[in-house]
Amino acid sequence: MRQEEALAWDKLAVFLLRPTVGLFVGRFQPLHRGHLEAIKDLMKKVDELVIVIGSSQYSHTLENPFTAGERVKMVRLALAETGIDAGRCYIIPVADVNVHNIWVAHVVAHTPRFDVVFTNEPLTRRLFIEAGFKVKPIKFHDRGRCSATNIRERMLKGKSWEALVPKSVAKFIKQINGAERLRELQV
Amino acid sequence: MRQEEALAWDKLAVFLLRPTVGLFVGRFQPLHRGHLEAIKDLMKKVDELVIVIGSSQYSHTLENPFTAGERVKMVRLALAETGIDAGRCYIIPVADVNVHNIWVAHVVAHTPRFDVVFTNEPLTRRLFIEAGFKVKPIKFHDRGRCSATNIRERMLKGKSWEALVPKSVAKFIKQINGAERLRELQV
Amino acid sequence: MRQEEALAWDKLAVFLLRPTVGLFVGRFQPLHRGHLEAIKDLMKKVDELVIVIGSSQYSHTLENPFTAGERVKMVRLALAETGIDAGRCYIIPVADVNVHNIWVAHVVAHTPRFDVVFTNEPLTRRLFIEAGFKVKPIKFHDRGRCSATNIRERMLKGKSWEALVPKSVAKFIKQINGAERLRELQV
Amino acid sequence: MRQEEALAWDKLAVFLLRPTVGLFVGRFQPLHRGHLEAIKDLMKKVDELVIVIGSSQYSHTLENPFTAGERVKMVRLALAETGIDAGRCYIIPVADVNVHNIWVAHVVAHTPRFDVVFTNEPLTRRLFIEAGFKVKPIKFHDRGRCSATNIRERMLKGKSWEALVPKSVAKFIKQINGAERLRELQV
Amino acid sequence: MRQEEALAWDKLAVFLLRPTVGLFVGRFQPLHRGHLEAIKDLMKKVDELVIVIGSSQYSHTLENPFTAGERVKMVRLALAETGIDAGRCYIIPVADVNVHNIWVAHVVAHTPRFDVVFTNEPLTRRLFIEAGFKVKPIKFHDRGRCSATNIRERMLKGKSWEALVPKSVAKFIKQINGAERLRELQV
Amino acid sequence: MRQEEALAWDKLAVFLLRPTVGLFVGRFQPLHRGHLEAIKDLMKKVDELVIVIGSSQYSHTLENPFTAGERVKMVRLALAETGIDAGRCYIIPVADVNVHNIWVAHVVAHTPRFDVVFTNEPLTRRLFIEAGFKVKPIKFHDRGRCSATNIRERMLKGKSWEALVPKSVAKFIKQINGAERLRELQV
Repeated sequence: MRQEEALAWDKLAVFLLRPTVGLFVGRFQPLHRGHLEAIKDLMKKVDELVIVIGSSQYSHTLENPFTAGERVKMVRLALAETGIDAGRCYIIPVADVNVHNIWVAHVVAHTPRFDVVFTNEPLTRRLFIEAGFKVKPIKFHDRGRCSATNIRERMLKGKSWEALVPKSVAKFIKQINGAERLRELQV
Repeated sequence: MRQEEALAWDKLAVFLLRPTVGLFVGRFQPLHRGHLEAIKDLMKKVDELVIVIGSSQYSHTLENPFTAGERVKMVRLALAETGIDAGRCYIIPVADVNVHNIWVAHVVAHTPRFDVVFTNEPLTRRLFIEAGFKVKPIKFHDRGRCSATNIRERMLKGKSWEALVPKSVAKFIKQINGAERLRELQV
Repeated sequence: MRQEEALAWDKLAVFLLRPTVGLFVGRFQPLHRGHLEAIKDLMKKVDELVIVIGSSQYSHTLENPFTAGERVKMVRLALAETGIDAGRCYIIPVADVNVHNIWVAHVVAHTPRFDVVFTNEPLTRRLFIEAGFKVKPIKFHDRGRCSATNIRERMLKGKSWEALVPKSVAKFIKQINGAERLRELQV
Repeated sequence: MRQEEALAWDKLAVFLLRPTVGLFVGRFQPLHRGHLEAIKDLMKKVDELVIVIGSSQYSHTLENPFTAGERVKMVRLALAETGIDAGRCYIIPVADVNVHNIWVAHVVAHTPRFDVVFTNEPLTRRLFIEAGFKVKPIKFHDRGRCSATNIRERMLKGKSWEALVPKSVAKFIKQINGAERLRELQV
Repeated sequence: MRQEEALAWDKLAVFLLRPTVGLFVGRFQPLHRGHLEAIKDLMKKVDELVIVIGSSQYSHTLENPFTAGERVKMVRLALAETGIDAGRCYIIPVADVNVHNIWVAHVVAHTPRFDVVFTNEPLTRRLFIEAGFKVKPIKFHDRGRCSATNIRERMLKGKSWEALVPKSVAKFIKQINGAERLRELQV
Repeated sequence: MRQEEALAWDKLAVFLLRPTVGLFVGRFQPLHRGHLEAIKDLMKKVDELVIVIGSSQYSHTLENPFTAGERVKMVRLALAETGIDAGRCYIIPVADVNVHNIWVAHVVAHTPRFDVVFTNEPLTRRLFIEAGFKVKPIKFHDRGRCSATNIRERMLKGKSWEALVPKSVAKFIKQINGAERLRELQV
């Protein structure tokens, strides 16, 4: 067998045997138990998961209080708390481009190859489908309480929010005085 | 002991016991053995390492042939090949802002907290020092041959380059026809 | 007559005989019968018409569902349906710059020379007047029903909208599943 | 005493004897009596004052009717009217970056060194404190009436607003037909 | 036949009968006889041609002396001079995004649907092929002399350049004092 | 005389009696004696001078070592050293927009009204003339030695440069270790 043929076989084998990779996009402001349950669920369906931290450029607003770096840390802490193998996940901040028709290309450029996109967000779904990707829905966990909007509102009002996020994430948010930051941003 | 005191002690303990985190910035166009030796060396000095993939927005040029996502993959492959615990590393693409005086703030916003910056690049060193960070040099490994510039030149000229990068990275670059891409970009 | 003089005469003649060019700015989300009636009316007043497709960078939102390319196509289809000579019109997408005081210069840079601006939009009117341009109002056609806002609302609610846009435009919007796209973008 | 020592002494002396510099950030849409009273008050507390004209890129909107250049002029006129030494003030337009975590670095890059920030705005306060700056509140003057929002509303409704701004500023706004511009921007 | 079926047939027919559309990208600094010959040649191969004026945001430099609007005019004049039907061509300025991996998505967003890309430029070719488009080469016409670089150099040196561009384009460049502008830009 | 007439007379008087304002654009990397002599000369010709600090966003490069804020300080120090009335000058940083055809509009938006532009730079001259402004040349002072390029080169080589800039500026550059910064930026 000549070298070229060997190379072609090698490429085919790589293609057939390559792992299934999923993409999961969230803003994680902050990461909550619903996000973590979804990630745990997806880890059963794919070999590797690319977790995109969307709107990465924003922080210090009522909608986006935490920096991309803080959110990277939250995801890592949650994975570790749950015992998910860090080597099977990528955690990648991706900035909004505010021009929807190039957003998918922008995500693709910042992430390792992926096979399937998991999202319930209508625009994300639409854009990936128009670009030819396979898109699947996510099973939500206790959606009424476990929403980042609800958690930020509870932080603003001084209500308890700790039980709605993984323990290590709650501890981290307290270390960086996250709830206090949110309250100070409110006029 | 009241709750406030407990909280203060908790924060102090967190501060004293927190892991040492290093920051390492590279463009990884492509990741080579010199990068990997440096990372292996740094992993002995710090508890966690934040690996920043700089100039993340660029790709498909002679200087920056690979996308941020492809470079994330290269770093991950190299870590796995060497047996470095993925859970102790962050791999984070960060775009150039082209305005040097805000670049450090931009990096800080995209990364988990870090204690020390490892770099030999004069501008990076200067900017982090002016911003009050501790900066240390990196021991280079076989710098004459193991430079990304040298590797890209060899790819362009059709010379062998595979031995200069980790095995898994060489395999990956072949899968995505990296050397071919580089040659096609040349007029 | 020397060559220089001839050149000067040539330039003067060009100036005196040059065609009157109008500028018409719209977002065309989507192009409707009111737009087309206005264009037909303006074509009687000027020799050439520069049709600027404003906010060209936006698409896939409830306010701006269609891409610049799709809107270029709509304008071209409407011109052809009405028998307007394509050679007398320019159809040019121009992005918003979000900094009003440079917007006129931005439009001027992207368009052939024009003599008069047709607009009813207060900000556009003000900015062109401050920059020294002649600005004239547009006669609106059936403004109550023929507004892009009204059409998008009807699309969202699943009501009929086809009669409010030129026939060829209605056909095109159906081909690209435009109304469906709009509904999917709605949460 | 050797030259090096002399240089070191020189630097120390410079440090000890250097003037106290304050930073004051406003949008000045338009500059009103409240701003001017605050500036007069601050001039008693610092040797030099850096007056930053924020959101400098915006103009010709209901929220930001005046250009940065027009606002520079307003500040200068108000200083002159009050007899404040122009040589003790810097008037510097600084654009919004819309990415809060790099905004402080952006301001620092555009201004001479300053020692203390004067602001009552929660986000500005929070961002400068997180970046390690000393922040102090401003005493407001007749806040109910002397707010730029109130003045713009009065301009829009055709009510009198002249008494709420310094005389020279009122005269300048009339020269540039400021109130008329605002009314034309309203649909 | 029910309405749904009719619609499906209608869509299929549209697909089968739809015109072949080509994409041609150039900077046209300035448009020369080589460009025009290529366009004439392509008009025989496709039903419609989308002519993209690349790097549209640049002007007043030695590399890019003419504005996008001036280049739109040149293309239109050349089409008219040759008798090409304006209704079969689109002339669309598209700005560089300086991030190659999103450039194809950016072009797609600004243009009507196209089936095949005509280019000899290595990067353009590579990017469209990676994005799954059909790419074909262009036959060049008198490439030694008919290059925009050569024409700009002749303009700078005060040599004759008029014969290298279509007559109407030469006349237009003289009207706007194009060669003079170029010489003034040279230090 | 009715109120309207009075207002019209007031506006006319303002127009006739208004001061002559000049515009002077420089990068001031760093400000040198040639700049200062030019400013002194211009102050005799105009009532007020708007000094624009161009390329304001850049710093920490070999071409642009100093921040906009540091350059504002240099201009102020030089004016004070020479006894020029700060109240007759505006010192305004203006960022490059890298799109030449909107640059003049960008400068106009950031500066108070001006009547005449002083520049020897070909592009600046051309752009202001095309926009309809009066442009006059500047008398250069000892141009061979007093150029910012020459000064930066001397700093890089460790040669003396102090005599080429005003005394207060030399002192300031030493305080911020300017020459050292430049040398560290060099690879």
